[in-house]
Amino acid sequence: MQKWRATRRLLLNSYSSKSRFDHPRSNPISDHSTTISRSSSGFESWTSRILHYRHFATAMIQRNPSFSTLNSDDINHFKGILGDKNVIEDEDTLLFANTDWMRKYKGSSKLLLQPRTTQEVSEVLKYCNSRRLAVVPQGGNTGLVGGSVPVFDEVIINVGSMKQVISFDKVSGVLVCEAGCILENLVSFLDNQGFIMPLDLGAKGSCQIGGNVSTNAGGLRLVRYGSLHGTVLGIEAVLANGDVLDMLGTLRKDNTGYDLKHLFIGSEGSLGIVTKVSILTPPKLSSVNLAFLACKDYSSCQKLLFEAKRRLGEILSAFEFLDNESLNLALNHLEGVRNPLPPAMHNFYVLIETTGSDESYDKEKLEAFLLRSMEDGLISDGVIAQDINQASSFWRIREGVPEALMKAGAVYKYDLSLPVETMYNLVEEMRTILGNSAKVIGYGHLGDGNLHFNISTPQYDDAILAQIEPFVYEWTSKQRGSISAEHGLGLMKANKIFYSKSHETVQLMASIKKLMDPNGILNPYKVLPYSIVSYI
Amino acid sequence: MQKWRATRRLLLNSYSSKSRFDHPRSNPISDHSTTISRSSSGFESWTSRILHYRHFATAMIQRNPSFSTLNSDDINHFKGILGDKNVIEDEDTLLFANTDWMRKYKGSSKLLLQPRTTQEVSEVLKYCNSRRLAVVPQGGNTGLVGGSVPVFDEVIINVGSMKQVISFDKVSGVLVCEAGCILENLVSFLDNQGFIMPLDLGAKGSCQIGGNVSTNAGGLRLVRYGSLHGTVLGIEAVLANGDVLDMLGTLRKDNTGYDLKHLFIGSEGSLGIVTKVSILTPPKLSSVNLAFLACKDYSSCQKLLFEAKRRLGEILSAFEFLDNESLNLALNHLEGVRNPLPPAMHNFYVLIETTGSDESYDKEKLEAFLLRSMEDGLISDGVIAQDINQASSFWRIREGVPEALMKAGAVYKYDLSLPVETMYNLVEEMRTILGNSAKVIGYGHLGDGNLHFNISTPQYDDAILAQIEPFVYEWTSKQRGSISAEHGLGLMKANKIFYSKSHETVQLMASIKKLMDPNGILNPYKVLPYSIVSYI
Repeated sequence: MQKWRATRRLLLNSYSSKSRFDHPRSNPISDHSTTISRSSSGFESWTSRILHYRHFATAMIQRNPSFSTLNSDDINHFKGILGDKNVIEDEDTLLFANTDWMRKYKGSSKLLLQPRTTQEVSEVLKYCNSRRLAVVPQGGNTGLVGGSVPVFDEVIINVGSMKQVISFDKVSGVLVCEAGCILENLVSFLDNQGFIMPLDLGAKGSCQIGGNVSTNAGGLRLVRYGSLHGTVLGIEAVLANGDVLDMLGTLRKDNTGYDLKHLFIGSEGSLGIVTKVSILTPPKLSSVNLAFLACKDYSSCQKLLFEAKRRLGEILSAFEFLDNESLNLALNHLEGVRNPLPPAMHNFYVLIETTGSDESYDKEKLEAFLLRSMEDGLISDGVIAQDINQASSFWRIREGVPEALMKAGAVYKYDLSLPVETMYNLVEEMRTILGNSAKVIGYGHLGDGNLHFNISTPQYDDAILAQIEPFVYEWTSKQRGSISAEHGLGLMKANKIFYSKSHETVQLMASIKKLMDPNGILNPYKVLPYSIVSYI
Repeated sequence: MQKWRATRRLLLNSYSSKSRFDHPRSNPISDHSTTISRSSSGFESWTSRILHYRHFATAMIQRNPSFSTLNSDDINHFKGILGDKNVIEDEDTLLFANTDWMRKYKGSSKLLLQPRTTQEVSEVLKYCNSRRLAVVPQGGNTGLVGGSVPVFDEVIINVGSMKQVISFDKVSGVLVCEAGCILENLVSFLDNQGFIMPLDLGAKGSCQIGGNVSTNAGGLRLVRYGSLHGTVLGIEAVLANGDVLDMLGTLRKDNTGYDLKHLFIGSEGSLGIVTKVSILTPPKLSSVNLAFLACKDYSSCQKLLFEAKRRLGEILSAFEFLDNESLNLALNHLEGVRNPLPPAMHNFYVLIETTGSDESYDKEKLEAFLLRSMEDGLISDGVIAQDINQASSFWRIREGVPEALMKAGAVYKYDLSLPVETMYNLVEEMRTILGNSAKVIGYGHLGDGNLHFNISTPQYDDAILAQIEPFVYEWTSKQRGSISAEHGLGLMKANKIFYSKSHETVQLMASIKKLMDPNGILNPYKVLPYSIVSYI
């Protein structure tokens, strides 16, 4: 009976569309932060539990006394470089730029600069370096770890005015653009050319490509197109002293010396400000299919991933999973969400997306794969989206879990990379430790080994936190996992780096930081432990 | 008539095999160097034209006087670390290890060390650094730019004894192994697991993964699986001072601090010795098809590439091109090679390979694409290989061009990355300059924008060379191309780096070199201009 139901469901027509990524998303909160409409006022919703986080994060940091304090001569100098209107002291604008989108972190900068050219960025940094004025590079300010807002009074350098597409080569698929281009605008530009960006994030309506590169943004297409270390072909960056590094190559192959662009990918603006980016974009493919599946245990999810890589091979474009606690949360807290596989609840759910160039073939291939997997017992039940609305409703469940978590009460959030085989053991061990005092939720990018690990409680409780940390970091460390899969370290986790990186490696990072930014003016207090670089 | 012929040919059955890469290659010379059976004697074949190159490359370099000279205490110390049998002073072995496989470069090292563990590499380097003994890290010694052999008396550290596979995770496809693993052995190991290496080189029978990573080897699968910056997930490396950097993560996503492994990918052993590698391997797909096609002009080749990316999309695995001079050379100088599209000669030839998971579908898709391209006038003629022998014969033409060039007389070889649109203009301009005095040959990895640019003359002639250089480097530089797409700089092109990299960028490379190797003992005289780092 079960089998028959699944068979029937799996034989529903799949949908084919331009791309699910063209479909506007409605959920305001995602793993990666999301396009949001923020007014620059209205901070009354900043809750006590968010303040709790912020106090925790900044409690041990003092302003670096070697940094100068902004004066009127500085402001006049910046006006000379940028013009009056790009030197912003307006309180509302500064409140907005001082606060991260989660409203967890808030700085007290008195100045926001808006350079329009690389040369302007260079002149600004050269001056700041000579004056020891600390700066925060800022793009769309959609980061989740407090990396894109000041900690104290750092000058904010927002590159959002640098938003030109410089060139696009349709033969090679190489796009060259300025750092302030909003990801969604690049997506639209490329759509007209028949290409897509190799990364996609919930925050695409606000985040900028310079910030994406500086934080090595992961997102939803990584399983297919790989990380930005593979797709970014070139970078132009301005160093702390104002030197412009022109590494803006457009070549897939270039073995002439050390490939320094990688230092800037993921260093969160602490080694230089990325001003231009060259990126390899894949052709847009016409056929997209999505299946929502149930698995009886985590072992089946793993086996299904293994088989999907082999049998769907070149058309597999996403492999996401969530546990039944995740689905329950979504069903209980999100409006209009219903269980795609009623009435039973299963232990695990998997979303498999394929993207290819042939609608009928891709659909047949997915269906054949799913039927075989069901016969092999890997899938307990499943359904293929028959139109883009149904596909969106499936994605809404997966992408809506963070929003549901926020609505359910207090949430302790962790973004971990772990070996796929042992990943879910963490969830089970945490449940044993916490018992009935909290809900432990696991979901994420299984295809990339990226677990979004969350503990949901009615309210924040230091006793619960003490049971979670350092346990979760130590557990991750023992598995040689990463305590930040895709969000970066920022301010939030700078002091946690040793859980994922060896002492020797962090020491070399600090040496490189000191070499490239001897005065430590670039995004201070972030990425590396302050104790290591504070004597700059 | 032409169309009919092409149609008939294109409808020949395609072959499907495990992989063309499983088929043993017979050509002894490839773009990337090749598996070779070398005896450690027999250097009488080292010709005068090869000596010419070597003298040219090393003429301006003096041994760094700050380096110590090896003494018997040093040798005894190394024997204490490694045991007597791994401290090699045997003349035949040293002659072999002192000479690069092209026999263009020859050092005069008196000592070869064979560490078996990371700890041994660490102890050796720590000692060498304290004694200022220069070293050359060596793997399979298959490089083409003199990077893997001593220039003077540097101690050779060969990691070939470190050849264990450490782990393989079938769910994630992540392989972890020691640096001395021969690429072909890894290919065989993975084949049994149903996976492939994401890179493939002609040299795979000799080259080692540590050397591949250290030189950022490109090769034949780059168009599909991207560069090693995307597929290498982790590295363990030993710094000049003996510190071991454990960055041997197995995670696809890890944003915890600067991603320092990229400094070691492509730095040719000048920043540290890679001792272990973690790499993402793709599942092995069952269906491979190959077409050999003729195009009337370079513009058609470009358009065909554009269409192939779009219409073959996810199954495209190689897009190689050669001009008619290349085919002529192969036909005239290689045994058993025949024109796949007789009797006419066309201006350009393209090889398109597809790799997918479904034999019948992939074949149909390729045939439909080729028929459409023929109707659109992009293809003048073409044939699909009907079995693996025919496929091998097509690849033999493409891969045999370097061998044909060597047999044809003197050859000036360049490995360039250029924008696809303008790439072939270089060949035409060079022909205009050289007139009838030389043959100018262009072929290579069109899908990656990688041109193998060769000038063939009956014998070496300084007057010809003066017409080629610096013209070819300047032309490449004007196009923002790379003077070394995949071979690296090594000794041969260390002083040419400014043609592809800006002064500021090279200065930062030199600063990082000095930071990480203050005594300059690691692979001296290579990669960076000696003038920049000689005062170390």
